[in-house]
Amino acid sequence: MKALWLENRSLRVRRDVPDPRPGPGEALIRVLQAGVCNTDIELVRGYYPFAGVPGHEFVGDVAEAATRPDLVGMRVVGEINVTCGSCRACLAGRRTHCERRQVLGIHGRNGAFAEYLALPAENLHEVAASISNDEAVFTEPLAAALEIRQQVPIGPGKRVLVLGAGKLGSLVAQVVGLAGCELTVAGRQASAPPHLAGLGIEVVAAHDVPSGSIDVVIECTGNHEGLDAALRLVRPRGTVVLKSTYAGTSSIDMSRVVVNEITLVGSRCGPFPEALELLARRHVAVDGMIAARYGLDSAVAALEEAAKPGTLKVLVAP
Amino acid sequence: MKALWLENRSLRVRRDVPDPRPGPGEALIRVLQAGVCNTDIELVRGYYPFAGVPGHEFVGDVAEAATRPDLVGMRVVGEINVTCGSCRACLAGRRTHCERRQVLGIHGRNGAFAEYLALPAENLHEVAASISNDEAVFTEPLAAALEIRQQVPIGPGKRVLVLGAGKLGSLVAQVVGLAGCELTVAGRQASAPPHLAGLGIEVVAAHDVPSGSIDVVIECTGNHEGLDAALRLVRPRGTVVLKSTYAGTSSIDMSRVVVNEITLVGSRCGPFPEALELLARRHVAVDGMIAARYGLDSAVAALEEAAKPGTLKVLVAP
Repeated sequence: MKALWLENRSLRVRRDVPDPRPGPGEALIRVLQAGVCNTDIELVRGYYPFAGVPGHEFVGDVAEAATRPDLVGMRVVGEINVTCGSCRACLAGRRTHCERRQVLGIHGRNGAFAEYLALPAENLHEVAASISNDEAVFTEPLAAALEIRQQVPIGPGKRVLVLGAGKLGSLVAQVVGLAGCELTVAGRQASAPPHLAGLGIEVVAAHDVPSGSIDVVIECTGNHEGLDAALRLVRPRGTVVLKSTYAGTSSIDMSRVVVNEITLVGSRCGPFPEALELLARRHVAVDGMIAARYGLDSAVAALEEAAKPGTLKVLVAP
Repeated sequence: MKALWLENRSLRVRRDVPDPRPGPGEALIRVLQAGVCNTDIELVRGYYPFAGVPGHEFVGDVAEAATRPDLVGMRVVGEINVTCGSCRACLAGRRTHCERRQVLGIHGRNGAFAEYLALPAENLHEVAASISNDEAVFTEPLAAALEIRQQVPIGPGKRVLVLGAGKLGSLVAQVVGLAGCELTVAGRQASAPPHLAGLGIEVVAAHDVPSGSIDVVIECTGNHEGLDAALRLVRPRGTVVLKSTYAGTSSIDMSRVVVNEITLVGSRCGPFPEALELLARRHVAVDGMIAARYGLDSAVAALEEAAKPGTLKVLVAP
């Protein structure tokens, strides 16, 4: 099949990638559309030594499902962690942290910038007819945004700041805003990107926010400076949620974390059913977040476009 | 009066330090004994630009207390944060994080390696007759150890690892062990320092602890490598408590924190009343932790001794 191929930090479109062979309990999915995530771009930059087909945000049709023939033809999205069910983490109910996991398009399993992909049937969730393909492709990052609310109490009276108004920050701001907190979104400059302005969400410049004034800072910048800013903005005994993954190490003054008794919380994958419900009920608006569309033949250009600062969601369709 | 003086990272004993002048509501305390903390040593290394008399762990007698004459003659320990009572942090009940605070022997107020010090009367706690001066000097670090239990749920069934078997780690291990968790103490080498062996607490080598096996790692090493080790040992969705303050920045792979959804919690000062109760009830044993005693004239040598790796508590008496 045709697919985007990553190897030695270099991307190219190949036409000779073997079709995925679904393992026991797995389904073959024909990709309808896939979204470019910052993690894909960081993989190219060497964040993690993955060789294969990247891409983990997708919507597709089930083409084959030997053990679940009822799924064939169903339009689905899919959870990206393929788990063993028997390690310590799985047995403890932390399946997204399975010690033997594969992660679609990130670790050990080819991903969604391809004509086909394979995932266990249990990872799949039906997409309601009212949700378009353009919307469905946001399910995975929306679920990741929802994870924050499962980890940190956020509600009325809490001053919450989302740092970064890009792809991830825009989704996180919408999801967090639903909790009724006092929400601020901060970027490098004060500006009102159309997709947020239309929702009544203003963006302030991070350097205009008073130091130590925020209860919960959610770091969505995708770069090292974000953590520094977050540690400046959070109040003593406040919480910094870390959503960005990027290559390399960060140099931080841990004594500041100790003296101010700050809590840092790493946050990754979240619940798909709730994300689909937010989309079905139109509680979040993602349409305005699509920056560009590419065919799979131009997938290399798609990732280059997505890597430009400030670019929102870039979609790739086979 | 006579006092140890820190200026430009250099220590000397001075005989011409002005006697502290208690402000409104403050008491003058004659120091009976003071303990050397790692923070004192880090101050000399430039952790924080403090010039003046260091020292914040002490027991003393109240010599003067204009507004509280009932305190005069009382043997006391004292909370180290002098707070304004009117800033955002004070009004929110986070007084140890007062935005205008002075911290005894650390920031804006001369400390305990001296004949006298001054503190607000409200900071003082009477020391029960059953608690010796040697024991009372451990109240402040014991309170800091107790802070952990106010921040992180620790109890039966939790695998807790204290990283570092020095001054702080030894106190933290005792306090945390009282919560009935599955406690391990890890140092550079497997060894059983007498003060812990006598309590039935074994020390294993950190590199022998399986990666990702610990629910709560408490970092008490006082150096940069501790955090790296903690991030290796904690399980996904586990917690790392940071107790050490030290000069400089740490270089850490924040993506590891995100991917494993680790929570990092900074932890500083804690409750004095509970610490005094632990001492009075003999729930912790601190006697075996005294490494050396110095007179104030030899306070420079005392801090040099305390700075040697593996040295337990060094005491200084005027």
